[in-house]
Amino acid sequence: MIDQFERLPGIGPRTAQRLALHLLRQPEEQIHSFADALLAARSQVGQCQTCFHLSAEPTCEICRNPERSIGMLCVVADSRDLLALERTREYAGRYHVLGGLISPMDGIGPEMLQISNLVKRVAADEINEVILALTPSVEGDTTSLYLARLLKPFTEVSRIAYGLPVGSELEYADDVTLSRALEGRRAVE
Amino acid sequence: MIDQFERLPGIGPRTAQRLALHLLRQPEEQIHSFADALLAARSQVGQCQTCFHLSAEPTCEICRNPERSIGMLCVVADSRDLLALERTREYAGRYHVLGGLISPMDGIGPEMLQISNLVKRVAADEINEVILALTPSVEGDTTSLYLARLLKPFTEVSRIAYGLPVGSELEYADDVTLSRALEGRRAVE
Repeated sequence: MIDQFERLPGIGPRTAQRLALHLLRQPEEQIHSFADALLAARSQVGQCQTCFHLSAEPTCEICRNPERSIGMLCVVADSRDLLALERTREYAGRYHVLGGLISPMDGIGPEMLQISNLVKRVAADEINEVILALTPSVEGDTTSLYLARLLKPFTEVSRIAYGLPVGSELEYADDVTLSRALEGRRAVE
Repeated sequence: MIDQFERLPGIGPRTAQRLALHLLRQPEEQIHSFADALLAARSQVGQCQTCFHLSAEPTCEICRNPERSIGMLCVVADSRDLLALERTREYAGRYHVLGGLISPMDGIGPEMLQISNLVKRVAADEINEVILALTPSVEGDTTSLYLARLLKPFTEVSRIAYGLPVGSELEYADDVTLSRALEGRRAVE
């Protein structure tokens, strides 16, 4: 059991031992329900057939919600990024989860991501704007450029802003971030 | 001597002691030239009469440089921010150093900063764009709004981008930064 816990991300030998010993002290029925929950999650949680977010149903909660705008689509690399954006409560459109970023170095090509499904979706639906919310990295930029080229015949394409994080000091910003912040300056309304 | 070193920012008792003992081991002439350099810097370095950057001359190197565009003015809170922007080598215009940010909490009002000089400069010169490069904080935003209102009759006013810093993970961005990044999204060219 300790070995199994140790394979989880962020859990070292000592934490694994603490968790295992804790479970051994619990009544047997509780261990059963823990094991059942693990198996149930693995067998029930699949992907939304529309946006590829994690979902127990064929269509996820966000895609089923009639109050989410259909005209706006936010493209993210994976479900963790989607959840981070949901936490802001600022976005009322829908999502598309790529399942990763294009990375020739790691042998990940466009055909391994949910890109053809994205293009089909954008070509078929009434989507006014696609927002690319990808990490500011070589892979993120490559993927953004690739997607922008594919999607621009059908819709407006924008990307989230790169620049100074809120609460940071300009003086300590790295050069690349500062260059992006200068380059991405906006007119003050 | 140890006490004097300890008053410097970022220097604790142990570092102060190490620095002082190091100096005591140096030849006397070297200590003299160190002391002279301190006094000379204090008496010679003043402010540029145009942009208020630190300068030994009445007009600083940047303001004297004919290759720096006169039509573009970047407003920063202090000289450290100016130096950070210079490190990016991306900006070829001139600067204006405010000497701080408006902060009613700390009793810093607009009249304590180089704001009236900025307005005079913008009203008199042929300036096409003023870029506000202030920290993304309550004080920075207050100052940006105040300056934008004053300067918009004379010129275009923009501010640097706030958003995800380059190399960061979207998943770990704080909610406020992520909201700003969404709000500040730009069309992909």
